[in-house]
Amino acid sequence: MTATPPAGPIIALDVMSGESGVAEAVAAADIAAERYPRLSFLLFGQEAAIAPELARHPRLAGRARIINSDDVVSMRDKPSQVLRRASTTSMGMAIDAVKQGEAHAAVSAGNTGALMAIALFALRTMKGIDRPALAAILPTLKSESVMLDLGANTECDATNLVQFAVMGAAFARTVLGLERPRLGLLNIGEEELKGTEELRTAATILKSAQLPMDFVGFVEGDKIGTGDVDVVVTDGFSGNIALKTAEGTSRLVTGLLGNAFRASIWGKLGYFIARSALQSLRNHLDPNAHNGAVFLGLNGLVVKSHGSANARGLANAIGVAHDLVRDDVGRRISADLAGIRMGPTIGDSTTEPNAA
Amino acid sequence: MTATPPAGPIIALDVMSGESGVAEAVAAADIAAERYPRLSFLLFGQEAAIAPELARHPRLAGRARIINSDDVVSMRDKPSQVLRRASTTSMGMAIDAVKQGEAHAAVSAGNTGALMAIALFALRTMKGIDRPALAAILPTLKSESVMLDLGANTECDATNLVQFAVMGAAFARTVLGLERPRLGLLNIGEEELKGTEELRTAATILKSAQLPMDFVGFVEGDKIGTGDVDVVVTDGFSGNIALKTAEGTSRLVTGLLGNAFRASIWGKLGYFIARSALQSLRNHLDPNAHNGAVFLGLNGLVVKSHGSANARGLANAIGVAHDLVRDDVGRRISADLAGIRMGPTIGDSTTEPNAA
Repeated sequence: MTATPPAGPIIALDVMSGESGVAEAVAAADIAAERYPRLSFLLFGQEAAIAPELARHPRLAGRARIINSDDVVSMRDKPSQVLRRASTTSMGMAIDAVKQGEAHAAVSAGNTGALMAIALFALRTMKGIDRPALAAILPTLKSESVMLDLGANTECDATNLVQFAVMGAAFARTVLGLERPRLGLLNIGEEELKGTEELRTAATILKSAQLPMDFVGFVEGDKIGTGDVDVVVTDGFSGNIALKTAEGTSRLVTGLLGNAFRASIWGKLGYFIARSALQSLRNHLDPNAHNGAVFLGLNGLVVKSHGSANARGLANAIGVAHDLVRDDVGRRISADLAGIRMGPTIGDSTTEPNAA
Repeated sequence: MTATPPAGPIIALDVMSGESGVAEAVAAADIAAERYPRLSFLLFGQEAAIAPELARHPRLAGRARIINSDDVVSMRDKPSQVLRRASTTSMGMAIDAVKQGEAHAAVSAGNTGALMAIALFALRTMKGIDRPALAAILPTLKSESVMLDLGANTECDATNLVQFAVMGAAFARTVLGLERPRLGLLNIGEEELKGTEELRTAATILKSAQLPMDFVGFVEGDKIGTGDVDVVVTDGFSGNIALKTAEGTSRLVTGLLGNAFRASIWGKLGYFIARSALQSLRNHLDPNAHNGAVFLGLNGLVVKSHGSANARGLANAIGVAHDLVRDDVGRRISADLAGIRMGPTIGDSTTEPNAA
């Protein structure tokens, strides 16, 4: 730990809050360190548990520093409880490192509500953004797409939705590497008159916005998985329902598929012969492959990993953090907000866009 | 057509509005007539097109009467346009037959918005129900479940949600044959504090309600497909998003599966060997197998078939109508409303329950 760390992005990694344990979390840092040679880490958690794991990964020598924290946020802790303990938990300390400028992004596999509450309280929303949103990467028939908000805001107005669109498009440009992502607003029909007043107002604003994206209008839930749009924007209630429904349906179909293969000797034999071909399906649907949801719109980057992600999955979430730091996604969002003209009915002084 | 029709339920079948054509619709009536020997039909549509098809099905002789209607509601017609033409379209005339007591239920594969508008205008809501809801049967890992509302009401209050619960439970008892269906409210978390005020109020009312069902509390979107609950209650916006997302994800996974089988010779061979085992998966996910959404809460039964359902699918929708007539689901709903105690904050004189 005496070597000078590389001058690249510094990740504040919450080692303790996930469900997969310290060994997997440190192994994730090692995988990410191999992928990104300039990356270094601050590892937050119980030093006595982390140190022996760290010693197993020589690549991390000089690139990872442990910062001891004995307190851990559990999956059952309420956001109000964890806010009081923010300064003593691995999660709270990792986010504080971003606030203090000691790290460029925080990554945690912990309790989403707690992470959201601590991040919002410590980092506050960016100028021009009223509410942060949780964005994630989903598999599609063609490749991947981005959806937001996935549950940070139960109810949203048109201004929120427009801001989510700006943030989601910037996220897709960074993480999916698209120049002009195609963006749709989730609705219960594609016609202009469908849905709520908030959705119709947001669509009107987005239609006239000057942004590096193509607004395709309203999309229905069955378009989330087709790959016809790159960004799906919705309120946190519908977004969470859609995300969980997609996860549940994916498990339903693969579960029925497993039953079908097991039901007869021909099914078992067919599965045995096709098993390596079927591996590509499993890889494409593996949550670890698309890991790394992001709280967008804060003064600092916070990436949420699946609670049960393995080392490779958590390394993918660290990769998302790396890309967002590299592309300075916060600056992109600020610049893009200047391309939006809010109507007088919904804009007020606090929601006026301002170029960075 | 001189024979006396059987004294069982009479179905008003809109033969023209679906996408699969007159031949499939008449064949559907024939399949249903075989399954339910006491069933008879009024067939609404162009007599010149229907008569030759009807002649192909001797089983329907004396059990199906054509009522000519030259006008057809198209999939692109707006609800406001079709209301004016209700008395001349096959869809409007089929619903009017229910209103006039000439048929026990109407079945149509046409435009959902138009069907909803005509049905609501002609039949009005039941006493004790503020708004009708669209309910459908979905496949689960174990068997089938019911979800409502699927898009009839974009925004719902607690009273609406409670009424949907009463109607959904009655529907599940009839169509799924369950004595005490397990019922959940769709939300973004299972904890009591999650979600909107409307959801929390509805949960409080349902917890104390005396109803032939088990209220399990809040469920998340991933529970829709597991079969852990039999009825999922939600507002029409979230319900439509969830339904479409489930359909899209099902297509995504089966599409990826097809790609995996086609990607290599081993995949193709494995598929060939397992193909009859895989048929059970296809059957379980086939929309025709779960066809027949219902507008619940009206003074009359209206069943909506998938627009592209084949004869077997449309026959299943007719079967749903048959079961609802047989079990007199409207009376069940009226009786169950008496078991609900609305809080003073949300109940008013028009929403007071009244036993039938």
